[in-house]
Amino acid sequence: MNLVLLAAEDLIAPHCVRLTGARAAYVAEVHRAEPGRTLRVGLLGGLCGAGVVKEMRPGEVILEVALTHEPPAKLPLRVLLALPRPKVMERALVALTSLGVAEVVLLNAWRVDKSYWGSPKLHDDTIARAIHEGLSQARDTQPPRVLQARLFRRYLEDDLPPADREGSRWVAHPEAATPCPRALQDIQLATLATLAIGPEGGWIAAELASFASAGFTAVHLGPRVLRVETALAALIGRLF
Amino acid sequence: MNLVLLAAEDLIAPHCVRLTGARAAYVAEVHRAEPGRTLRVGLLGGLCGAGVVKEMRPGEVILEVALTHEPPAKLPLRVLLALPRPKVMERALVALTSLGVAEVVLLNAWRVDKSYWGSPKLHDDTIARAIHEGLSQARDTQPPRVLQARLFRRYLEDDLPPADREGSRWVAHPEAATPCPRALQDIQLATLATLAIGPEGGWIAAELASFASAGFTAVHLGPRVLRVETALAALIGRLF
Repeated sequence: MNLVLLAAEDLIAPHCVRLTGARAAYVAEVHRAEPGRTLRVGLLGGLCGAGVVKEMRPGEVILEVALTHEPPAKLPLRVLLALPRPKVMERALVALTSLGVAEVVLLNAWRVDKSYWGSPKLHDDTIARAIHEGLSQARDTQPPRVLQARLFRRYLEDDLPPADREGSRWVAHPEAATPCPRALQDIQLATLATLAIGPEGGWIAAELASFASAGFTAVHLGPRVLRVETALAALIGRLF
Repeated sequence: MNLVLLAAEDLIAPHCVRLTGARAAYVAEVHRAEPGRTLRVGLLGGLCGAGVVKEMRPGEVILEVALTHEPPAKLPLRVLLALPRPKVMERALVALTSLGVAEVVLLNAWRVDKSYWGSPKLHDDTIARAIHEGLSQARDTQPPRVLQARLFRRYLEDDLPPADREGSRWVAHPEAATPCPRALQDIQLATLATLAIGPEGGWIAAELASFASAGFTAVHLGPRVLRVETALAALIGRLF
C-alpha cells in the first residue's frame, strides 16, 4: 500500500482515524509502523495527506490525519474492455485504476465466453476491492466509474453519449490500417476520449461496424499481440 | 498461444515437425485443431510461417510447415530491472518479451530482498519458459537476451557498454525533475537505449549517483506509483 485508503466511517473524531482488519494488519506487519511513524493516507473520494500513528493494538491502529492535497488528476479516458476471463479482468481493473482511467466499461462481445458474466469477480465487493488496490497502489483516492454492459449494441447505440459531445474514439483492431496515435495534445485532453479493447480472438465484423457508426476509428498497435493488461498499459502510456 | 514456437529438434524431416508434450496438448485441447487446420508457427530464433496439421495422435501432432517471413522487429531497448519478487519477475519477463525488448538485465539493488536471488524462478529453464510464453503471445521468435547482474556497481561500471557507444539512458525515479520522454524519433532508435526500473521503495542515492556516472538521466512518470509490470508497459508504450 503506497497510500492507506480511508473511508468516511473510519473517522472516530475530527482528524482521528481508526483502522481495523486488513489495513491495520498491513500497517503493522508490512509497514512495520510504530507510534510516531507517518504514513501516506487518502480519503476515498477526497483529499490525500499524512497520518501519524498514535496508538497500536492487535488488530487496531489509531492515526491522526491531516488531509491537505488533491489526488493526482484522472486521465480523461473511458476504456471499453471486452470482458476478459475473471482473473484477467481483476488484474486489468487494478491496472486501469492505477493508471488513472476515468471510466471502465466491461462490455460484452461475440467472442466473450458467456460464462464470464456469471463470475463472482463481477460482484460489487470484488470490483470495489480491485479498485481500492489500484488506488492505494497509485496514491489516488478517486475511483474510476465502472460499468457492466451485457448488451453490446444497446450500450453502443443507447448508453454511450453521442460522439459529437466527446473526444476521440479508438477501437483496437490488429488489421486496422491506422496506427494508434501517440502523445495526445492538450486540446484533445479537454474531452473524454474512449478506447475499446477486444476479446481474445478480436472483434467480429458486425461489432467493428457498430464501432464505426459510433464514431470510433480502428487503430492497430503493431504486429505484436499483447496480453490485455500489457496492451492496456502500453496504449495508455502511448496516448497520454 | 498466438504462435506455436518450434525448436530445431522438432523437425523430423524437411518441412515436417513433430510436437509432443504441452504444445501437442495445447494444439489439441485449446486450438481444438484437426488435420487440415493451419496454425501460426515460428522457429525459435528463426522465421515465422504456417503449419498445417497432418496427423494427430494422443500426445503428438505432426505439422507440415512453411517458414516464410521475418518475426516482428525487436525494440532497440535494454531494460535494467531491479530484481522484483519472483512471481512479479516472471510476469515482467513475459511482458517485456512480448513487448519486444532486446535485452533484460535483472539487477541487484540495495532495496532488493536478497532472498529473491535464491529463487528457482531464476533458473535457466524457468526463465526460458517465461521467454517462450512471451514470444508465443507476441508472435515473435527472437528471444531477448536475459542477464543476471548480482553486483550492482560491477555491472554499471564494468559490464554495461560505455554510454558514448549507445543510445539514450534513463533511470526511472519518482523525484526526478524531468518527465520521461515520449515517442522517440527514428534517429534515436538507431542505437540501443537503456531504461532502468527500481525496486519497491526505489533506488538509493548512491545508486542514482552510479547511474548518473554511467550516462543515465533520471526521469519521472508522474505522480502515480505503478506496479512494475504496468510501469514497464506504460513506459515502453510511451517511448516507442
